[in-house]
Amino acid sequence: MSVLAEFSMTPLDKGESVSPYVARSIDIIQQSGLPYKMGPMGTCIEGDWDAVFGVIKQCYEKMNSDCKRITISIKVDARDGAENRLTDKIKSVEEKLGRAVNS
Amino acid sequence: MSVLAEFSMTPLDKGESVSPYVARSIDIIQQSGLPYKMGPMGTCIEGDWDAVFGVIKQCYEKMNSDCKRITISIKVDARDGAENRLTDKIKSVEEKLGRAVNS
Amino acid sequence: MSVLAEFSMTPLDKGESVSPYVARSIDIIQQSGLPYKMGPMGTCIEGDWDAVFGVIKQCYEKMNSDCKRITISIKVDARDGAENRLTDKIKSVEEKLGRAVNS
Amino acid sequence: MSVLAEFSMTPLDKGESVSPYVARSIDIIQQSGLPYKMGPMGTCIEGDWDAVFGVIKQCYEKMNSDCKRITISIKVDARDGAENRLTDKIKSVEEKLGRAVNS
Repeated sequence: MSVLAEFSMTPLDKGESVSPYVARSIDIIQQSGLPYKMGPMGTCIEGDWDAVFGVIKQCYEKMNSDCKRITISIKVDARDGAENRLTDKIKSVEEKLGRAVNS
Repeated sequence: MSVLAEFSMTPLDKGESVSPYVARSIDIIQQSGLPYKMGPMGTCIEGDWDAVFGVIKQCYEKMNSDCKRITISIKVDARDGAENRLTDKIKSVEEKLGRAVNS
Repeated sequence: MSVLAEFSMTPLDKGESVSPYVARSIDIIQQSGLPYKMGPMGTCIEGDWDAVFGVIKQCYEKMNSDCKRITISIKVDARDGAENRLTDKIKSVEEKLGRAVNS
Repeated sequence: MSVLAEFSMTPLDKGESVSPYVARSIDIIQQSGLPYKMGPMGTCIEGDWDAVFGVIKQCYEKMNSDCKRITISIKVDARDGAENRLTDKIKSVEEKLGRAVNS
């Protein structure tokens, strides 16, 4: 089972500029060694359930150390017998369309 | 820190009627003993991080036992020094409004 | 087609206590006359596409009048030939379970 | 106000392989002329409110023409005085980190 998860994690008590907090999460993701892809609205990571949610918990614990209110959104697509879906889902759509997409 | 999480978990390979699968998740939630509230689009549970994500993982493992593709949506609101937020967030809005809301 | 939508709308630039802003959205929803149900993490409304997204746009315009950064989450379940799903989805799960759920 | 929206739209009644339906939405997005970026879990588009939600409605109407149950997830980040955020949000994180990210 490949667990593909996109998540975003934002403090509500730090004003409207939150990129320093996002950068700390990206640092944790990069150090995890899991394949990832950052997008404008969230970051996708792929692995098994425990690896994926272990990384999300680490990001939460870091943010929880100096933020009083945190909002998190997680979307999971888990599929049997699949892998490399950070890239393959987009390729599959490109094949159906017969042309490239911005990604 | 109170972790309030709303989640929904749906198989993509079982056709358009998915309530039997939702019922199994509700059964797991009820057995967990965590406070919860089911809504039309997802179920909210409240606890600490490990309790909340432990229940979500149990629901996933059950669904994973007979479904090939699963989509999950999780939204978390984590707040320092708060509790009983399954009911208090709605009360707080009712106080601001000065009247009751459907909930 | 019944369009059932749960949404939450939060300013990012107003600090951690956002219930006054949520209350204004609930006021707009109540005035719309659409059936709704407020939960701890969002509010569900039901109608056709234009009615539902018309209400969400009104809430956005009100918040946009005095907030500089707004985050919105919308989840839609659209189903042919269905109605009254604010209550019927929960009833359907209760029938499968053979007992009541907190809702 | 720049409205940046990530959305995904999936039929629940067409089995586990849904890329043909996703491809039709991407086709509509490309024809709209709005800047977009497809990711593994959803596609981001940027514009004003009516342009963004006009495209989402078109995708819904196309899917509604031959699907009986549709699930949609939309996440919006609306920010005053901002633009080009499909690329600038990632750049801003890279500046904080002092290094490149996969995107």
